[in-house]
Amino acid sequence: MKLPRLAPHVVDDAVARALREDLGDAGDITSNATIPASATSRAVIAARKPGVIAGVDTVCAAFRQVDPAIQIAVEAGDGARVEKGDPLFSLEGPSRGILSAERVALNFLGHLSGVATATAALVDAVAETKAQIVCTRKTTPGLRALEKYAALCGGGRNHRFGLYDAVMIKDNHIAAAGGITSALAAAKSAIGHMVKVEIEIDRLDQLEAAIAGGADVILLDNMSTEDMKQAVDINQARTVLEASGNVTVKTVRAIAETGVDVISSGWITHSAPSLDVGLDFK
Amino acid sequence: MKLPRLAPHVVDDAVARALREDLGDAGDITSNATIPASATSRAVIAARKPGVIAGVDTVCAAFRQVDPAIQIAVEAGDGARVEKGDPLFSLEGPSRGILSAERVALNFLGHLSGVATATAALVDAVAETKAQIVCTRKTTPGLRALEKYAALCGGGRNHRFGLYDAVMIKDNHIAAAGGITSALAAAKSAIGHMVKVEIEIDRLDQLEAAIAGGADVILLDNMSTEDMKQAVDINQARTVLEASGNVTVKTVRAIAETGVDVISSGWITHSAPSLDVGLDFK
Amino acid sequence: MKLPRLAPHVVDDAVARALREDLGDAGDITSNATIPASATSRAVIAARKPGVIAGVDTVCAAFRQVDPAIQIAVEAGDGARVEKGDPLFSLEGPSRGILSAERVALNFLGHLSGVATATAALVDAVAETKAQIVCTRKTTPGLRALEKYAALCGGGRNHRFGLYDAVMIKDNHIAAAGGITSALAAAKSAIGHMVKVEIEIDRLDQLEAAIAGGADVILLDNMSTEDMKQAVDINQARTVLEASGNVTVKTVRAIAETGVDVISSGWITHSAPSLDVGLDFK
Amino acid sequence: MKLPRLAPHVVDDAVARALREDLGDAGDITSNATIPASATSRAVIAARKPGVIAGVDTVCAAFRQVDPAIQIAVEAGDGARVEKGDPLFSLEGPSRGILSAERVALNFLGHLSGVATATAALVDAVAETKAQIVCTRKTTPGLRALEKYAALCGGGRNHRFGLYDAVMIKDNHIAAAGGITSALAAAKSAIGHMVKVEIEIDRLDQLEAAIAGGADVILLDNMSTEDMKQAVDINQARTVLEASGNVTVKTVRAIAETGVDVISSGWITHSAPSLDVGLDFK
Amino acid sequence: MKLPRLAPHVVDDAVARALREDLGDAGDITSNATIPASATSRAVIAARKPGVIAGVDTVCAAFRQVDPAIQIAVEAGDGARVEKGDPLFSLEGPSRGILSAERVALNFLGHLSGVATATAALVDAVAETKAQIVCTRKTTPGLRALEKYAALCGGGRNHRFGLYDAVMIKDNHIAAAGGITSALAAAKSAIGHMVKVEIEIDRLDQLEAAIAGGADVILLDNMSTEDMKQAVDINQARTVLEASGNVTVKTVRAIAETGVDVISSGWITHSAPSLDVGLDFK
Amino acid sequence: MKLPRLAPHVVDDAVARALREDLGDAGDITSNATIPASATSRAVIAARKPGVIAGVDTVCAAFRQVDPAIQIAVEAGDGARVEKGDPLFSLEGPSRGILSAERVALNFLGHLSGVATATAALVDAVAETKAQIVCTRKTTPGLRALEKYAALCGGGRNHRFGLYDAVMIKDNHIAAAGGITSALAAAKSAIGHMVKVEIEIDRLDQLEAAIAGGADVILLDNMSTEDMKQAVDINQARTVLEASGNVTVKTVRAIAETGVDVISSGWITHSAPSLDVGLDFK
Repeated sequence: MKLPRLAPHVVDDAVARALREDLGDAGDITSNATIPASATSRAVIAARKPGVIAGVDTVCAAFRQVDPAIQIAVEAGDGARVEKGDPLFSLEGPSRGILSAERVALNFLGHLSGVATATAALVDAVAETKAQIVCTRKTTPGLRALEKYAALCGGGRNHRFGLYDAVMIKDNHIAAAGGITSALAAAKSAIGHMVKVEIEIDRLDQLEAAIAGGADVILLDNMSTEDMKQAVDINQARTVLEASGNVTVKTVRAIAETGVDVISSGWITHSAPSLDVGLDFK
Repeated sequence: MKLPRLAPHVVDDAVARALREDLGDAGDITSNATIPASATSRAVIAARKPGVIAGVDTVCAAFRQVDPAIQIAVEAGDGARVEKGDPLFSLEGPSRGILSAERVALNFLGHLSGVATATAALVDAVAETKAQIVCTRKTTPGLRALEKYAALCGGGRNHRFGLYDAVMIKDNHIAAAGGITSALAAAKSAIGHMVKVEIEIDRLDQLEAAIAGGADVILLDNMSTEDMKQAVDINQARTVLEASGNVTVKTVRAIAETGVDVISSGWITHSAPSLDVGLDFK
Repeated sequence: MKLPRLAPHVVDDAVARALREDLGDAGDITSNATIPASATSRAVIAARKPGVIAGVDTVCAAFRQVDPAIQIAVEAGDGARVEKGDPLFSLEGPSRGILSAERVALNFLGHLSGVATATAALVDAVAETKAQIVCTRKTTPGLRALEKYAALCGGGRNHRFGLYDAVMIKDNHIAAAGGITSALAAAKSAIGHMVKVEIEIDRLDQLEAAIAGGADVILLDNMSTEDMKQAVDINQARTVLEASGNVTVKTVRAIAETGVDVISSGWITHSAPSLDVGLDFK
Repeated sequence: MKLPRLAPHVVDDAVARALREDLGDAGDITSNATIPASATSRAVIAARKPGVIAGVDTVCAAFRQVDPAIQIAVEAGDGARVEKGDPLFSLEGPSRGILSAERVALNFLGHLSGVATATAALVDAVAETKAQIVCTRKTTPGLRALEKYAALCGGGRNHRFGLYDAVMIKDNHIAAAGGITSALAAAKSAIGHMVKVEIEIDRLDQLEAAIAGGADVILLDNMSTEDMKQAVDINQARTVLEASGNVTVKTVRAIAETGVDVISSGWITHSAPSLDVGLDFK
Repeated sequence: MKLPRLAPHVVDDAVARALREDLGDAGDITSNATIPASATSRAVIAARKPGVIAGVDTVCAAFRQVDPAIQIAVEAGDGARVEKGDPLFSLEGPSRGILSAERVALNFLGHLSGVATATAALVDAVAETKAQIVCTRKTTPGLRALEKYAALCGGGRNHRFGLYDAVMIKDNHIAAAGGITSALAAAKSAIGHMVKVEIEIDRLDQLEAAIAGGADVILLDNMSTEDMKQAVDINQARTVLEASGNVTVKTVRAIAETGVDVISSGWITHSAPSLDVGLDFK
Repeated sequence: MKLPRLAPHVVDDAVARALREDLGDAGDITSNATIPASATSRAVIAARKPGVIAGVDTVCAAFRQVDPAIQIAVEAGDGARVEKGDPLFSLEGPSRGILSAERVALNFLGHLSGVATATAALVDAVAETKAQIVCTRKTTPGLRALEKYAALCGGGRNHRFGLYDAVMIKDNHIAAAGGITSALAAAKSAIGHMVKVEIEIDRLDQLEAAIAGGADVILLDNMSTEDMKQAVDINQARTVLEASGNVTVKTVRAIAETGVDVISSGWITHSAPSLDVGLDFK
């Protein structure tokens, strides 16, 4: 799997914010009181459940921001599939710093690996079909860029990042614009030539108007798999078809087998359980 | 239930960050293209699953920051237990603004209500026992203050907010300080008179040293319910006992019935599924 | 012309930064020393040269942030074509506040109207052709979103906003990827289904590979108008053709008449002279 | 030419803002997709037109912030006069990083060198006179400190940086204060002993009052060169005389030859065309 | 006394920072627990010691930022001389909000009024002389603009605000530049025409070189009053003379009587005791 | 004395803010004009009065942020008791950088060492008693974390850091809650198990209710030493007793000898005079 490089500011800003949240003004009063400033330790971060890793850069940034003297060796990179007990990072350096950054590092790692693991579960379930699993804008506030990246680590793809980078015409837009045809026309006359346009339909009889209107992508919202299959047949590959609604590990295979191109899931970002990871001193 | 007032900056900063994340530089290009600037709408946010509400202030801030002309009526306050279909907010105002803020508002509301709902599930499970359910530092990076508040909305209490506001002595601190007695002594000699001290033990034979050392709270980490019961008997209410480890809706009742004072759960903040909420135009 | 709504944070942040830059720590020491706090004035902002207006929101924000008591009436909205002497804004309120915000307001208005005016000059020059004029990433650092908006005010369209919202494969990417075909394949296998792909070519013999590779847009870089015409003929409307390089008010018509779909210009953002605007007390 | 050292935060903040603007949340999706993470390149930034260089620190900061592994050699320092084709920087390092930072670096370099080049044109035109060319507060919002520095690189000087560091009494201040004499008196009684006072006049008969009132500098606003000459004669070097209004490369020599001390130009900051610079891989 | 208007961002930013510092993530847990959300109160802020008031805007901003529903009446404006017991502000509104903002408001008011009171003590001591009392850059980090303003409230004036707005040549600069004459020449050739130049001397025999070099102000550093008198005599009002060093309420009169123009004191900003102020519910 | 480690962001943010305040947009115009960029110097920061040092990290950060090439050797660590003339830091590096950072570094060092010195004066005065000296929330806005740390350097302890980390029930809370008993009950039912509760009383007859209500700490506000002694007798060590009000170097011994556990002083943070420190080139 080929992963993009996260922009440094995305990682650094999120980690700095989390460290301020955890250290506050008084800092790590427990470690300061009980551990000598000169003490050093070796520690390992390991998986306590199987899963897919995401967030390596955030872990490194957390320790580095707290104390640049901490040495970090990455044992399992982003996208790695790991088993319970697998080592993920080896650390060595000032004990206080390791303990002060521990919780922030683990919170990022567990959360993002949770997203990657949930994504991978859907991706695995649609193996051998052509369907791509994509994440949505139903992300945790403040963490969208990192969660989008975590979905890639799990083998998924990204839908648009925000309201700003692609057009998605939903029912209320259609109603306000006076129908599918006029909504698509309005969108295409307003946007630049580098922006894609998707439109959401929930009935098969809307499909031809959407294709004719020049939609790059058509979202089949909460349709039955029967209807999705029909949509695929009608479409004849003229445009990209995306399915959404009631996408779970149990349902996703049947959706993929309808022949849709893309399946979008909010669950992988807004409800993925954290992957259990822990740090132990050696 | 009596809820605290969130400091304005906690809400405003988190919402502003999320709106920047969703609107980016180009803004809501779909609504701008398809909806006239002068169009107004009425809309309702409703629960699509039963749950406990948290995050009302974030919803109001999201719409207000996008367009102060949007009028918001709160139909279900923080802490309210709602059923599928219950209205939560009524909105009226510029259509573009409502649609531009919708996703950010729902992301906060779903996430925080998810935390409240998960907390309430544990709280309900220990009803009639004296055990308090508390959340931990295993929170989503950047959202700790809001998640801590959501746990209160679900009927829980808060453990410490960060490394800065209370002492929690764990195994590595004990090892570095040379034992339970010296770790507690070191902590108490360093901190101020307004700071509580908790120490974590994982064996019953550590209990007397922890009590003798003057711990305000003792964490029984991953102990069996048998051992917890013994700890309660030994303690004779001399100090506060907290249980943690493997706390689920299924296990929590048995833990509470051991007589511990506090049960802490990371799950309610790091892995609670989002509560399904949606916005519909009227 | 239908203009989008600028996200409030884009305007507010840019104006706040500019006001801090101009007021510093000591504030407007001249007005504070020479004008009574209670003095009020009426003033008009007018065009001193003909042009196209952009930046109305920034002007309003500048006065409002300095003193919310200043009343502002907008006489010429974004996109308005104005003549020398035309009134643009009428102001009434505390004299100190009007004078303290004046320069920041005029700097935004002049700069953004300059971009709009330059854009309009190109747009006018290609009237009746199908070519769209678009702005590029060659923008003034820190002002991209506002300049992109100003280009819309001048009748242009926007190319991508940044590196993040569309793929643009240039010569170095092609070289690194091993050719046009493999570069396009690499891009399409990595990105999401909502992202468009453009590729830059500088020779006609690259055109078929670019089309075959599935490029949504092909940039004809610094080609002669002869070659552009041939490209249009070869393309047969299979993909979108964009021309760039040496685009001036003098050359743009000939470029448009080749039949290309889009003409991109860095000059309208990086080198447009400021529109002369001034404020006078009444 | 002796140039000041820019405060680190001035450079770092402006560059960080510009990089966030260009990289957004998703980063450089083109380079990430088409260029291996391990690829390295050598590149040169060169002038594509003759001009005067400014902004070397911003270029270095852009590459360093994106990837500290990029090595940069500066071939032409701030203030250097370069010809078309002259190399300005040599770069070596990760290809992705070089391409991701390229546009931001060039936008700063082109913009600031444009200011320096425009300034130098005026400075050259007044060679051998005693007149200094100074820039004003008519700067691009958010870039004032950098543009003020660029003016120095072009051989100019700086007028005040903002409303905060010097007094400039204009017509509206004079009117509010009740005349030149009382305006100057009000200013001098309010400000500290380290602040200079300038007053703007547009008629010769105001000159004596301005001198008598103790103005450190008198601005001759939009006067004819005839009147300026008279002002110089009347002044007898008692105070500093500054000319402004209609200052262009064509008019500036005649203005300088009137004997004024200072000539201020808004054009060099608000309307200087960008200097054409480009980056090529070797 | 005529006071300048503080730039809104100076007040708002400092107050926002202080409120975050005091409220943290959990907010005012005491008021939230013990006071009903609906409770309202009336309160008065009064002086508990005589002094001079400064910081009215910060007090208003603190209450407004915490809860805009709090009504504030200002009873004693900036610069007012008050006695023990004098009411300064009357407040009415939500009890929780008043108590949550109380300490931040009083910390600003006490600190800034302390600066004003200390300044006034020096100003009073030099009454009827021509000497101005000015504050220096020896200010509390992060509060310079507010302390500079407080010095004005106490009847003082401001020396330069920072390293950026005026030249002050000290011994190390003189040494590096090769003497007084060359240091002044270097400064005057580098800076703009709106910047004043001060040079520090500590021996009378340096005075003529400093005057001849064109210094706008000469600082007599730690000189005896005898030497200061001589300096005044030698100067013959050719330039402004400033005294510094060992300036106390006891010594300042004698220094002023030497005839110097300006006396600068670090003590009024770095060591002024806080004015005792308190808030009582009615 | 064992001192905690300040969280890096506490130091870095405060120093960055102070440097921006001092350098502004134009930077150190004096050093830039008079000192060659290549000049290097050696310098020493020394105490000019006896005192206790605090703020070493802020000094190092100031020089490092201005120019990382400056080498710093710490001669006297935080908490060190120094005499007039004692060297505190040795510096070597670029002369411009040393001079540009000098004032900010000294402002922090003088201010924080002033707090440490004042604290130490109280601590010394109560030597051999059991009373701890603690600082309050009466701190300088924006510097609380640093001043709390400085109090530790002086041998004191910290009271709560803000409204968020401990409960302090004062007269207005008691009144709103309906009495001491109900106020304590309300607090204890609302807060988490890791938060301590203090209540303020000003009459001896309130003491039993406060103890019975379960207060962790009782503040004896402005009581006579006679009453304090009685309170100590009545308390019989059941809870922690804190004295406040009229705490000076002269009164503090008598207060301590009443047997109270803690004595809190606002004076050590809000009114401590700056310790005189200076930098000299060698």
